[in-house]
Amino acid sequence: MSSDLVIGFDADDTLWHNENIFEKTHERYRHLLARFHDAATVDRTLFATEMRNLELYGYGIKGFTLSAIETAIQITKGQIGSDEIDQIIRLGQEMLNHPVELLDGIPETLATLSKQHRLLVITKGDLRDQERKLAKSGLAAHFNHVEIVSEKDTGTYFRILQRYEITPDRFLMVGNSLKSDILPVLDLGGAGAYIPYVITWGHERSDPRPQAEGRFFQLKTARDLPQVIASLS
Amino acid sequence: MSSDLVIGFDADDTLWHNENIFEKTHERYRHLLARFHDAATVDRTLFATEMRNLELYGYGIKGFTLSAIETAIQITKGQIGSDEIDQIIRLGQEMLNHPVELLDGIPETLATLSKQHRLLVITKGDLRDQERKLAKSGLAAHFNHVEIVSEKDTGTYFRILQRYEITPDRFLMVGNSLKSDILPVLDLGGAGAYIPYVITWGHERSDPRPQAEGRFFQLKTARDLPQVIASLS
Repeated sequence: MSSDLVIGFDADDTLWHNENIFEKTHERYRHLLARFHDAATVDRTLFATEMRNLELYGYGIKGFTLSAIETAIQITKGQIGSDEIDQIIRLGQEMLNHPVELLDGIPETLATLSKQHRLLVITKGDLRDQERKLAKSGLAAHFNHVEIVSEKDTGTYFRILQRYEITPDRFLMVGNSLKSDILPVLDLGGAGAYIPYVITWGHERSDPRPQAEGRFFQLKTARDLPQVIASLS
Repeated sequence: MSSDLVIGFDADDTLWHNENIFEKTHERYRHLLARFHDAATVDRTLFATEMRNLELYGYGIKGFTLSAIETAIQITKGQIGSDEIDQIIRLGQEMLNHPVELLDGIPETLATLSKQHRLLVITKGDLRDQERKLAKSGLAAHFNHVEIVSEKDTGTYFRILQRYEITPDRFLMVGNSLKSDILPVLDLGGAGAYIPYVITWGHERSDPRPQAEGRFFQLKTARDLPQVIASLS
């Protein structure tokens, strides 16, 4: 399997830090609303708004910002000031402008793997935001293809594998979300390398541990990937 | 050329109405701000905000909504109420939920053309919004490939033609924007069928008429496409 193995990488919290930026924004958001509600209420209400709007907005910072404004108006019964709403817009823009901080071991590992394998990025979120992060990351040259999708389910992976004529038994997906990166690929008969990030967004949490003998791997860092790939051959 | 001609279609204002939905939203937005400013000032300031944010937000309704909120706060010096900002959020959500209204002749023309040609959709905007509109339109089955991109320039078309192994001399792009649909494709040596929509967004306006003998066509309706395609053979 090893030599013609194709490797897909999730982007946010797999190649570069993302949830820590959202986490910093959440802190400032809670602070902005602290005179109205405690942090837990703010978090819970924002999450509920995000879930309600997910079908409409999809993933990404712009939808998050709109949900944060909607929540702030709702939770304060309209008492929030327009200057504070303007601050939420700025928070969103700062997230979009945030520098890309790579995860440990990523550039070296990609440089090694791209010598022997076709590498793909498969990520969801705002189209332009993900393209900008990939450009800023300096990693783009390692990847043969980039797929920015609106949802990462079994159908999505099936279409991508078809498009690039990859059979599932020679595909390994690497990511920090069991739900979006690993389980759908195992479903198709591919392999998954799960590298948890320190924080997982509520919506990406998944309880069941995958049962897929020889095709599922949990790693601490991308540096362990070459060893996994050797074991797949 | 005719038999192996591949035809690309823009989506908004080429397959279905879009600017008329934005126009209705603009009217309600002007009305919301009428006690602060006249319509021309509102329009001019909103357009300036959109252009300033375009690099950051990209195209689409979510970015438009965020720019509309930012403009409303700025132009009223913060006097706008949070209930009015909530109304702007609802305007954006209504646009996202708007039914898809096909342009005249589209379903019949696509049904005819898809029997003999590979058809592509090439569109920009929010990923999920464009996917939803295509699903709602009932047209998806006519298209071999769908490309939702963040910008439609020469490089974008070059990459898409490469990806699907289409040589420019057997590619025809159909769309309502000279700037985004026609000029970049003519640049590559392909053909363009320009079908103007009743309204053109300021950012899509383009002055120069293309000079491309036998490769540029201006049509009134998609119903005239089969005739153009016959002339290309």
